Amino acid sequence: MNFIEKLTAATRKNNSLVCVGLDPDPKLMPEGLGVYEFNKAIIDATADIACAYKPNFAFYEALGDEGIAALKATIKYVPSGIPVIGDAKRGDIGNTSKAYATALFEVFKLDGATISPYLGFDGIEPFLQYKDKGLFILCRTSNSGAVDFQSLKCKTPGGGTRCLYEIVAAKAGEWNKNGNIGLVVGATYPEELKIIREQHPSLPFLIPGVGAQGGEIETTVKYGTDKNGERAVVNSSRGIIYASRGKDFAPAARKAAMTLRDQLNAFRPKLDNI
Amino acid sequence: MNFIEKLTAATRKNNSLVCVGLDPDPKLMPEGLGVYEFNKAIIDATADIACAYKPNFAFYEALGDEGIAALKATIKYVPSGIPVIGDAKRGDIGNTSKAYATALFEVFKLDGATISPYLGFDGIEPFLQYKDKGLFILCRTSNSGAVDFQSLKCKTPGGGTRCLYEIVAAKAGEWNKNGNIGLVVGATYPEELKIIREQHPSLPFLIPGVGAQGGEIETTVKYGTDKNGERAVVNSSRGIIYASRGKDFAPAARKAAMTLRDQLNAFRPKLDNI
Repeated sequence: MNFIEKLTAATRKNNSLVCVGLDPDPKLMPEGLGVYEFNKAIIDATADIACAYKPNFAFYEALGDEGIAALKATIKYVPSGIPVIGDAKRGDIGNTSKAYATALFEVFKLDGATISPYLGFDGIEPFLQYKDKGLFILCRTSNSGAVDFQSLKCKTPGGGTRCLYEIVAAKAGEWNKNGNIGLVVGATYPEELKIIREQHPSLPFLIPGVGAQGGEIETTVKYGTDKNGERAVVNSSRGIIYASRGKDFAPAARKAAMTLRDQLNAFRPKLDNI
Repeated sequence: MNFIEKLTAATRKNNSLVCVGLDPDPKLMPEGLGVYEFNKAIIDATADIACAYKPNFAFYEALGDEGIAALKATIKYVPSGIPVIGDAKRGDIGNTSKAYATALFEVFKLDGATISPYLGFDGIEPFLQYKDKGLFILCRTSNSGAVDFQSLKCKTPGGGTRCLYEIVAAKAGEWNKNGNIGLVVGATYPEELKIIREQHPSLPFLIPGVGAQGGEIETTVKYGTDKNGERAVVNSSRGIIYASRGKDFAPAARKAAMTLRDQLNAFRPKLDNI
């Protein structure tokens, strides 16, 4: 089963677009709990509500060897029917990206990963060779700094102009020979989300930025999903895993994930109609 | 001592612009040798010739826990007068980049690192807070895919156009309040190197792409260094560490590093004149 099949199966089984971002920060976690124990409890509490999990490597790397061990154990712990997307934003020259792809897919055994586009095709190609893995290329990120470069108006060969993020999306579409490319598009930029979805009706989108970052639910679903109300992986990290910072963090996470799922589903077409 | 002072001191002490890229690949290393032992021998053989060492994280991450342990041990082993630049090309939204900065500078205890610009200012700012560390922002990379996005002609507020890599360099210059920013500019694009050096006469440049990738020595020095023939960190990885793949790999690496140093120095102004 390749990435998109696995994602679609999880989306349908759990009737959910919610991706739970596993970004452990000991300063925000209940005191005395290890990262793996924390993640395990979150996964147990949300495995029937989530369409994917997304650990961000930064938070594990910041914790040193223990963090990396917790990351590996967490990836392994996620039930096999739910894809795990490693948010690592890697990207280097071809020779080196090959080593990063080995790390992500053979050492960490992820189902998918986020990839940075700045180095161009040869930096992305080694990841694409893993045909069963999902590669989400950064297109329009959810942060305030996204405008610094991604919004630049660039000249196209046809003589017009398009924003950098649109050109990245277009190239990603061209490079998608193995059908395993998706895009990262932030919920915080609904107009851009709309433009990119119109241009790429069937690519899976990883959509960060709802919840703590302020992205709106309605536009996220309306502009972010495909015609069936699918292929959108809507990530929430802090809004779910730190819904409570007390002993009830796991049921609180469950409740937050369920609320987000229901809010998103309210704007999706009914599954029966697909 | 901050990064630029440390780099300048090493450059002068060893009279060298050579950065040794520590990119271990067991398929290319002498059989039976561990990564740390390999790196140790390379460092012992080049510590009086190099101005910096640059381990690329990808090659260590691909080897799993043992690779990470070897990376840490390697960073620790480098003599304290020589800066270690972690080539990790990290970059995320602000909140997450902060965790990456912790990993690079507090867990791995690097002197400097490479940073990806695609996410814009808030993704770079947490790294800049480490005022004594050197941050090399990817500007014009050495690979063939660099043209895909970095060469795009973008509209500027003044009504003109500039290439994306020039805009990245200009922004990096603006953001350089703490004086700890440098740029990554490939030796394989001498015209671009010239343009960027003219626009940024005193920023340190990390210049990959000589040797195996084909960048030329004369243009690298002529266009890459500052007016004193310094502030250029010219990286060679495979050309030095795999100069021989037999038991004589360490003396062969020494010879290759010395040759590159002398070739580069032939085009530099004499130190006496500074």
